[in-house]
Amino acid sequence: MAINYEILEEIGLISESKSGWKKKLNLISWNSRDAKYDLRDWAPDNEKMGKGITLTKDELKELRDVLNNMNL
Amino acid sequence: MAINYEILEEIGLISESKSGWKKKLNLISWNSRDAKYDLRDWAPDNEKMGKGITLTKDELKELRDVLNNMNL
Repeated sequence: MAINYEILEEIGLISESKSGWKKKLNLISWNSRDAKYDLRDWAPDNEKMGKGITLTKDELKELRDVLNNMNL
Repeated sequence: MAINYEILEEIGLISESKSGWKKKLNLISWNSRDAKYDLRDWAPDNEKMGKGITLTKDELKELRDVLNNMNL
């Protein structure tokens, strides 16, 4: 089953591994559905994608608040 | 292949769906390896887990900064 997706916005690079894989926060429309925020690992040149998680705007706000309350 | 994991700390509840699945930020040791931050969906009572992503402390800091720079 081919996955159809469109990266609407590359929001932030979270990290890059030695092998060139990048952990990114993007805004993605999956299968032409409403866009969702998406935190996932990507191979160089976005050739492949790793496991990740989609988040709504409200979830992103909640995550931001949780992170700001942590002693990082 | 059974996955061996230990939830060392439940850091934050990001959201809960009508079906009772919860998106959580935890600190988890997978297969007795060093603990990593983990953002994932969990079935009620943690019976099952969904797809998610692991993050190092540095990645969490970077994600926090990216989120704080967004106009959410």
